[in-house]
Amino acid sequence: MLGDQLKKIVENTPGAAGAILMGFDGIAIMQHLADDAAGAVDLESTAMEFSFRFMELRRAAAALDMGEVQDVTVRGERQSFVCRALSDEYFVGVLLTDPSFLGKGRFLLRTAAPELLADL
Amino acid sequence: MLGDQLKKIVENTPGAAGAILMGFDGIAIMQHLADDAAGAVDLESTAMEFSFRFMELRRAAAALDMGEVQDVTVRGERQSFVCRALSDEYFVGVLLTDPSFLGKGRFLLRTAAPELLADL
Repeated sequence: MLGDQLKKIVENTPGAAGAILMGFDGIAIMQHLADDAAGAVDLESTAMEFSFRFMELRRAAAALDMGEVQDVTVRGERQSFVCRALSDEYFVGVLLTDPSFLGKGRFLLRTAAPELLADL
Repeated sequence: MLGDQLKKIVENTPGAAGAILMGFDGIAIMQHLADDAAGAVDLESTAMEFSFRFMELRRAAAALDMGEVQDVTVRGERQSFVCRALSDEYFVGVLLTDPSFLGKGRFLLRTAAPELLADL
């Protein structure tokens, strides 16, 4: 169920290399890589690296009256990463090698969030 | 010159409360607030809080083969913040109270970057 959701996010986001469900403690629950991305990207390391920083950003935003953080997008020269909090413990992220459809990825994370959370 | 650029970013991004030019050391160079945002948002504190985290994200991304970070977007319930690195020392950010035109803000930061950098 979780795997199907992640697969759907990857398949429906052009340029997506993979999607991952992870705890803010940096422990991966499940991931799905695009066929051509296996071996080419290290999705788990990327998500793990961002898990701590994402949590810090959430704390900072709450202290700053920005309200609860919905999603964080980091656009890099070669890869971009969008992540969305599912709860205080888990988040889902998608890694893209082409940022053209970042918005689509962000939208799919949002729409998949309730179902992912229910399946956790 | 710098002020005009920041003003242009704010005026052309619907929902923008202000734009700021800041060093990664958290020291503000210049800011421009929308007329209705003065007193309502604390742009400098928000940017300062993110300056350190933004720098950390850049370091992490470089180590992860994401390449140089172009921009970072944090979307919160009430406010969103987009920032873009201008150099190793400075970044420009825009704070929005309505995220509908986040993409427009991101685009304007990108197009204004060369001129802002030249005027620094």
